[in-house]
Amino acid sequence: MEEIPRDHPRYVSLMIRGRIVKGFEEGIVVPQGLLAHGRGEALDYILGEETHPPALEATRAAAALLLLSKHPVISVNGNTAALIPDEIVKLAKILNARIEVNLFHRSPDRVRKIKEFLQSKGAENVLGDSDLVEIPGLSSQRRFVSRGGIYSADTVLVPLEDGDRTEKLVALGKRVVAIDLNPFSRTSKVATISIVDNVVRAMPNLCRAAEELKNHTAAELEGIFRSFNNEENLRRMIELILRRLSRLSGLEELP
Amino acid sequence: MEEIPRDHPRYVSLMIRGRIVKGFEEGIVVPQGLLAHGRGEALDYILGEETHPPALEATRAAAALLLLSKHPVISVNGNTAALIPDEIVKLAKILNARIEVNLFHRSPDRVRKIKEFLQSKGAENVLGDSDLVEIPGLSSQRRFVSRGGIYSADTVLVPLEDGDRTEKLVALGKRVVAIDLNPFSRTSKVATISIVDNVVRAMPNLCRAAEELKNHTAAELEGIFRSFNNEENLRRMIELILRRLSRLSGLEELP
Repeated sequence: MEEIPRDHPRYVSLMIRGRIVKGFEEGIVVPQGLLAHGRGEALDYILGEETHPPALEATRAAAALLLLSKHPVISVNGNTAALIPDEIVKLAKILNARIEVNLFHRSPDRVRKIKEFLQSKGAENVLGDSDLVEIPGLSSQRRFVSRGGIYSADTVLVPLEDGDRTEKLVALGKRVVAIDLNPFSRTSKVATISIVDNVVRAMPNLCRAAEELKNHTAAELEGIFRSFNNEENLRRMIELILRRLSRLSGLEELP
Repeated sequence: MEEIPRDHPRYVSLMIRGRIVKGFEEGIVVPQGLLAHGRGEALDYILGEETHPPALEATRAAAALLLLSKHPVISVNGNTAALIPDEIVKLAKILNARIEVNLFHRSPDRVRKIKEFLQSKGAENVLGDSDLVEIPGLSSQRRFVSRGGIYSADTVLVPLEDGDRTEKLVALGKRVVAIDLNPFSRTSKVATISIVDNVVRAMPNLCRAAEELKNHTAAELEGIFRSFNNEENLRRMIELILRRLSRLSGLEELP
């Protein structure tokens, strides 16, 4: 990997990109994953590459919901595994959640590589390679889910999601927490809670929020979750983006 | 390549992506090029994946400027070659311009592959692999330019550019026509003419405009070029983007 000077204006973004490129070289990330990451970079650039207050509120509500759930599952794809392996493992431990590898560009080899990679980071009981059933009405390879994992989950955390699956999961009566940089996406609109932020910032925040809330009573957690309104939160994020772009158009200096 | 149904809402975008992935498999596009293409996809999504009137006006002014130039050069990188090889060759013929391979992630092997690919599409006299000199003050590999090409050009067409080089080229007294989906970018701000559009739409438009204007007098072309104001054009593109995002936030349906 090329050395990136610490004072480079886009140091963090380039370091993150380095993780994706490494995942690609190791066969965890597919070429389409590099394209998807590029889309994320553009959207994060529009956010100013920082977490905004509505995203933090969504994160707190998501932590409450996940703590209230009887059977939470963290759905992991190649990019997520490459970007935030430690946080996936950490969050699974805090929540006592299962981790399931679920891929759009699925191959048994890649499922195995991602599972082994997460295990090397301390993950236990990673699902997604056996005892699979199909989500009805979903045509992508995302339809193959573990019977003891996503299939029977009450809440699914889906970082870096495609809209089709989120719709189906919600239609199956599950609650979905999405992490998505695009507040206009179908995923963001149909998810129970949408955290509009970069997974690289959102997942550590989600771990912190879950740590902080884990000793709260169920009633307190219910209160936090119930007071959250996803549609209103997305609208605030969109307003914030529009304000930010308006400021940029005043020819303020860009990185 | 996977088959994409013609009625898919994102058919065009997915077909374009197919060209980049093919270029990647052939060693023309680097992994970083896939990331860059993904960024472009996100920005084009914000434009609604269509050419807007200010971009068409910029294209016409660019055609006039290129026709007025004594020594125009089309700078080509891996993504550009993979996306619009036929249009590069066609525009070079209309303008009597030279084509030069100029890469950020430069290797002799990749320069050769891109040159051969363009030659297979009918390009003659592709520069960039010999008689190189360095652009002073530019640290990236983009600094290596052909003495008879970019180095001595009066106008350089730079589709898919990085900001550093555009600044240096302008500082060397050259005129730069950029094609860039980001109206906030350094490239867009410093270029003589910035066409804020997808290269896949902008290059065919540029060919058409050059065909249409090529029999105009120098005075007429000067008139078209002089009446163009890049800063004002960028401001209109930005306003247009803000209006579009505002409409989207009214929860209009998205693809």
